[in-house]
Amino acid sequence: MPRIAEVRVTPILISDPPLLNVQGVHQPYTPRTIVEVVTENGAMGLGETYGDLDYLKLAQEFAPSLAGAELTVNHLGAGLLETVRRVDVERIDNRVQAEGLRGARTLGKIAASVRSAFEVAIYDALGHELGVPVHALLGGKVRDAVEFSGYLFYRWAEHPGPDEPKDDWGAALDPEGVVAQAKRMAADYGFDSFKLKGGVFEPAQEIAAIRALAEAFPGHPLRLDPNGAWTVPTSLEVAAQLEDVLEYLEDPTTGTRNMAEVARKTSLPLATNMCVTAFDDIPEAFACDAVQVVLSDHHYWGGLRATQDLAAVCGVYGVGVSMHSNTHLGISLAAMTQIAATIPDLRYACDTHRPWQTEDVITEPHTFTDGRIRVTDAPGLGVELDRDSLAKLHERWVDSDVRRRDDLAAMRRVNPQWTVPTW
Amino acid sequence: MPRIAEVRVTPILISDPPLLNVQGVHQPYTPRTIVEVVTENGAMGLGETYGDLDYLKLAQEFAPSLAGAELTVNHLGAGLLETVRRVDVERIDNRVQAEGLRGARTLGKIAASVRSAFEVAIYDALGHELGVPVHALLGGKVRDAVEFSGYLFYRWAEHPGPDEPKDDWGAALDPEGVVAQAKRMAADYGFDSFKLKGGVFEPAQEIAAIRALAEAFPGHPLRLDPNGAWTVPTSLEVAAQLEDVLEYLEDPTTGTRNMAEVARKTSLPLATNMCVTAFDDIPEAFACDAVQVVLSDHHYWGGLRATQDLAAVCGVYGVGVSMHSNTHLGISLAAMTQIAATIPDLRYACDTHRPWQTEDVITEPHTFTDGRIRVTDAPGLGVELDRDSLAKLHERWVDSDVRRRDDLAAMRRVNPQWTVPTW
Repeated sequence: MPRIAEVRVTPILISDPPLLNVQGVHQPYTPRTIVEVVTENGAMGLGETYGDLDYLKLAQEFAPSLAGAELTVNHLGAGLLETVRRVDVERIDNRVQAEGLRGARTLGKIAASVRSAFEVAIYDALGHELGVPVHALLGGKVRDAVEFSGYLFYRWAEHPGPDEPKDDWGAALDPEGVVAQAKRMAADYGFDSFKLKGGVFEPAQEIAAIRALAEAFPGHPLRLDPNGAWTVPTSLEVAAQLEDVLEYLEDPTTGTRNMAEVARKTSLPLATNMCVTAFDDIPEAFACDAVQVVLSDHHYWGGLRATQDLAAVCGVYGVGVSMHSNTHLGISLAAMTQIAATIPDLRYACDTHRPWQTEDVITEPHTFTDGRIRVTDAPGLGVELDRDSLAKLHERWVDSDVRRRDDLAAMRRVNPQWTVPTW
Repeated sequence: MPRIAEVRVTPILISDPPLLNVQGVHQPYTPRTIVEVVTENGAMGLGETYGDLDYLKLAQEFAPSLAGAELTVNHLGAGLLETVRRVDVERIDNRVQAEGLRGARTLGKIAASVRSAFEVAIYDALGHELGVPVHALLGGKVRDAVEFSGYLFYRWAEHPGPDEPKDDWGAALDPEGVVAQAKRMAADYGFDSFKLKGGVFEPAQEIAAIRALAEAFPGHPLRLDPNGAWTVPTSLEVAAQLEDVLEYLEDPTTGTRNMAEVARKTSLPLATNMCVTAFDDIPEAFACDAVQVVLSDHHYWGGLRATQDLAAVCGVYGVGVSMHSNTHLGISLAAMTQIAATIPDLRYACDTHRPWQTEDVITEPHTFTDGRIRVTDAPGLGVELDRDSLAKLHERWVDSDVRRRDDLAAMRRVNPQWTVPTW
């Protein structure tokens, strides 16, 4: 195996629309961390992960230890754990952080998210060295295209400040707005299924939005995800009202016990990216049948092999598997597509925030045909770094004081009294 | 991806020493099935699996459907199942068959065993096409050598018939014989740990053999495997007497409920290749903590990716994983080594029958150094077919009427009243 000559970690800020969720609203700019691994032969591998400061610090501290190492994923175990022990991260507190949207914030999950960026970059570089796609390094693809779902958000037309990034999607604050957004997504990308990010308005209003979607897209798979905003009784009330139109209900409430109680009393499958977000969560949740679909995320599950492992466990226990998405760029979308291509039993279209991210650090951002991305057989991830774009987005990071995603703070710019609601 | 030009399935008979187990004694010759996959570019991949007639029939019926297909493992799902439905297999009956030694005989496991031979051959051919080792196609190796355990057997000096294969190991029918066998294995191969195949004599005698081994090899990991020959009380009695010297006790008794009862009452980990032998067995067995170590076998678990999946599930549930061995040749030993190299949490030395198989179908049979096989980075499995040897062993199959392994029938040649004992 060739050796790693250089590893670069670059923090960037990308523009993000004013998408609403239970925590608040997306900031105008959100951080991501880009990893480059360069081999002694000049082959390059790319990785991407969360950009919040703790993730970045850990990635920056760990990166130098890879220089000179063999181009394998072997060093991502003990070496990374060692770095985790050394690096100070912020006080673990998921009450008011956007990370709460992806379940409990733990040091293990931060480390796993950082690991994933290096793992993806190493597989990408290996693919370039060997002239094979990443999927061929992971057992081989079992499909030629991966289906994604249209990710609908309640949103404002614009961010509140002047000179903040704009787009032409307009506001979506009622059923009509949601349906209009879905129609445009269907027309532009061909998505067949849709997920509405809920937990924004009172449940009756979100039920009405799903009903309107069901009417506009009869028979299409629909999902609703309030990010745990509801009590058990509210969850059951919503489930009862939407049982006939939802493909699954995602994280209606928080905690394994509450999810299990909801699951016992509804025929709707419950999906999650908050209740089961690490391997340690699995035995208890599966034993009490708290979730019927796990939305994997190669970032915080720890990488591509870990995602296959998760799928294996889900398969044995009869739990469905699909894919969660957080704000991401084309490197992660390429990685999601490659790994999804290797998982035989992927019964639900994967999530992607792609339509909302108009900036990217790759030269040819992905296109969707019939809601699908073709699984490339080009070497590695099949994407190329746009160095100018990376430099520009990094410069924005340097010039800004945004160092983590904080939907609550963004909302308080508009409504200083804002607190996270529950129904 | 290149296409598959030709697939060959060759039944062979290999010589086997008179090794004893609870079912009887190994026959002088035992069948194996060798699979060759040739690509349109002339690259070749090798696979190996059980040779009993049902496996062979299924492999022969399935093989032609691969010709012309892309060189991927995609066709090994529905296409194979379709063939399984078409092919008559013998009445499923594991009471008196050697397959009983590897747990219940099910159609699913026969199909998985056949699948594995084609999967290994496809990965081998792919490795040759791409110039990379099989482990690189499965996420990459995490170790450079795989440790194996010395597999000790009670045995006769010779088979009973004239003109049957002989070797110079001599008889091992008491503690002294077992220790002498272990000493030769340690000297010739460097094995550090030893497994004794038990269930042959009454438990007191096998306890004495393990005690003698512990004295001759103080501190070395020792295992005892009676293939489910004991009742729960006997299992507990043996466990109590050997708690201080065994690394694990393997399949002392049969059935999830019985294993769980033994496990509850001993501090010894229980290993298995009979109680948990398919993914469907896992949830119940893990829920009642019936086994603490699963001995994977890429043949009947369905291949290399399946073995990784098994390891993933074991990891999540805190169950150890190691590797079972049945009589095998160098193709399977290469596959076992490649896949073991990719499994991070392999805490126990793997089993191998290698010392007992002196014939092979590869040009350079593996050698053990310090009980380990080096993980080759040569393309594919890193082995080459010995075509003359394959032809000779196939000719032996053609000239013989041995069509399946039957340890019970072999024992009845000597003792017509023989029945499988229990203690």
